[in-house]
Amino acid sequence: MNNTFRKILAITVSVFALCTNLNASEIRGTGDLGIIIERADGSILIVEHSTDTILGRVEGFGNLSHASAVFSRDERYAYVFGREGGLTKVDILTQKVVKRIIQGGNSIGGAISQDGKLVAVSNYEPGGVKLFDAETLDLVADLKTGSKTVGLVDAPDGKFIFSLYDTGEIWVADFTDVKKPDITKFKDIGSLPYDALLTPGGRYYVAGLFGEDGMAMLDLWNMDKGVKRVMDGYGKGEKKLPVYKMPHLEGWASADDLLFVPAIGRHEVLVLNKFTWQEVDRIKVHGQPIFVMARPDGREVWVNFAIPNNDTIQVIDVVTNKIKKTLKPGKAVLHMEFTPRGEKVWMSVRDDNKVQVYDTRSYELLTEMPALAPSGIFFTNRAHEIGL
Amino acid sequence: MNNTFRKILAITVSVFALCTNLNASEIRGTGDLGIIIERADGSILIVEHSTDTILGRVEGFGNLSHASAVFSRDERYAYVFGREGGLTKVDILTQKVVKRIIQGGNSIGGAISQDGKLVAVSNYEPGGVKLFDAETLDLVADLKTGSKTVGLVDAPDGKFIFSLYDTGEIWVADFTDVKKPDITKFKDIGSLPYDALLTPGGRYYVAGLFGEDGMAMLDLWNMDKGVKRVMDGYGKGEKKLPVYKMPHLEGWASADDLLFVPAIGRHEVLVLNKFTWQEVDRIKVHGQPIFVMARPDGREVWVNFAIPNNDTIQVIDVVTNKIKKTLKPGKAVLHMEFTPRGEKVWMSVRDDNKVQVYDTRSYELLTEMPALAPSGIFFTNRAHEIGL
Repeated sequence: MNNTFRKILAITVSVFALCTNLNASEIRGTGDLGIIIERADGSILIVEHSTDTILGRVEGFGNLSHASAVFSRDERYAYVFGREGGLTKVDILTQKVVKRIIQGGNSIGGAISQDGKLVAVSNYEPGGVKLFDAETLDLVADLKTGSKTVGLVDAPDGKFIFSLYDTGEIWVADFTDVKKPDITKFKDIGSLPYDALLTPGGRYYVAGLFGEDGMAMLDLWNMDKGVKRVMDGYGKGEKKLPVYKMPHLEGWASADDLLFVPAIGRHEVLVLNKFTWQEVDRIKVHGQPIFVMARPDGREVWVNFAIPNNDTIQVIDVVTNKIKKTLKPGKAVLHMEFTPRGEKVWMSVRDDNKVQVYDTRSYELLTEMPALAPSGIFFTNRAHEIGL
Repeated sequence: MNNTFRKILAITVSVFALCTNLNASEIRGTGDLGIIIERADGSILIVEHSTDTILGRVEGFGNLSHASAVFSRDERYAYVFGREGGLTKVDILTQKVVKRIIQGGNSIGGAISQDGKLVAVSNYEPGGVKLFDAETLDLVADLKTGSKTVGLVDAPDGKFIFSLYDTGEIWVADFTDVKKPDITKFKDIGSLPYDALLTPGGRYYVAGLFGEDGMAMLDLWNMDKGVKRVMDGYGKGEKKLPVYKMPHLEGWASADDLLFVPAIGRHEVLVLNKFTWQEVDRIKVHGQPIFVMARPDGREVWVNFAIPNNDTIQVIDVVTNKIKKTLKPGKAVLHMEFTPRGEKVWMSVRDDNKVQVYDTRSYELLTEMPALAPSGIFFTNRAHEIGL
């Protein structure tokens, strides 16, 4: 995209934001707000999903490639984690950056503690986890791990869990006393854990292994049983396919007793039983799946894809495991976010510079809004969820 | 409680509220707010659970016995359903009643539609469901059922579900066109359904039967299979015990593949498998259970009891199904509400005129606050949940 075009787009977005902007100093609820990452321009949009409008635009976030965000427990502030180590606290009501720090050299995501008091960031370089006071962003703990640190999530009972890429470990860290964290280390979990997820509610922590054909699973309700290998050799004996984009492990769907998992490199979604961790089905899909996301009621699973198939969304019916609907939102559908109770879904269509909103019942396009190369969409109700 | 004592308490609560009151016109997030029903005085407390404080008190709600509440999707407004048919919309930011109507003669609860646009109330007299515009409280539909109407819940795909006490039916109502609702009726579901629940996420609707020893279950993902009888005869062959208080069916806990259900009239919590609906265990508890509530991570189930054992709370460990902890909060522990991610729990101790807050990890009492005969506690994160 050339610079002139980008400038015109920026103006269009700003005018659009102005037109729909509520008075930022007006009191209002924050349960229907969210942010959208504009990765190329280091900015975010502040949005509202009751009437599907852009409220404003905030700039100055630095490199936002692979950026993610968490929210304060009152749903007023967003903490945005940038790739180059930036941690930015933004007030979504006043639409202002409250504080911004560069906390590390190369950051790979963050989390907020169960009580909302600590923001944690995992870093590649130097490898470790840093903890910040959620109010002030003052550094309160700096845990060195001697490895690139990935797959950081918050967990129940005030814990954080993360994986060490270089040394193949999972650490469960209790920061009740930030000066003296209590850490349980699981070693030899497998080669090169590259990302991880916590199942909804917070029972199972699962790390993907880059160096092996399987995953490492820790049952937090039975920690003394240690880390187990699951989905071992699920690609064994079959021809390896080129992987266009590593799926995010956050992109798993949990629906009743089933997990829907993107098959790495294959045009398939795997269906696992959540209790046995055995594969029960494989669903043929349009491309290499990236995010495999359950509608909040678990009745459907929505999937986006890697290039060259990233203009498409497919909807899987969870009872029949069949494709129910195929949508073509546009060029490069990078991310989806459901409204809290799932009646609508927002999508970033990066290369068309727009965000679309669909009705999840009729699959009709309800509205679209201009945005600058949008990627991640994050709604404030995430503040109330465990393990994001 | 005599009137002088009540007046002194009212003043104490008001002073306490004043001392901790934030400026009600100040902008703030609404994700950490809630209300507490003061049933005897027709008032509510507005509370905040980040620092555990009472923000204010709003009066004029009429008869609040068995009152319940739902929230607008932006988490700014509460809709309070009173027993005598009162429906009150309150602005929790400005701490003012926005509108109050008497919509029926004898009301038994309400719900808010998935998209937040419709508030529904179920009525005994005249029997039916009324729908109101969530913005204005204007009546938009008046559905007569010819029966006392109970067990009303919102459901995915924009539906409401409810049961007919006198005629033994379950109705699934789609109000997409409020002038012409599309209603699926299930008849002969059993004798005298008195209350119902929707499992988290919204798949199973279960109605308790007053006239029979069992329950009626509708799988919303397989509606063509009709209503099934579950837990049939679970008290059969055993001596009937006096029932001091009918347990609320909302007081079921869902943890992983298990449901924890209060056994009516017995000092037991039943454990069912959520997929087979078979009983897998019975846990002896301190009294007749009323609310059986899962901590948000599902790792524990907290239980309160009917008189004469209503000074006690017990905590069940979900892995072992053993009692893990017994607390004695005080006289008449009527209701509990967990913070969204479960690090704390609030309790109404009605006859001690106070609300207590516990740490769910250490079980320590963190703080207590004066309240006038408090009953239901409702936090705004309910706005984001299906089937409440």
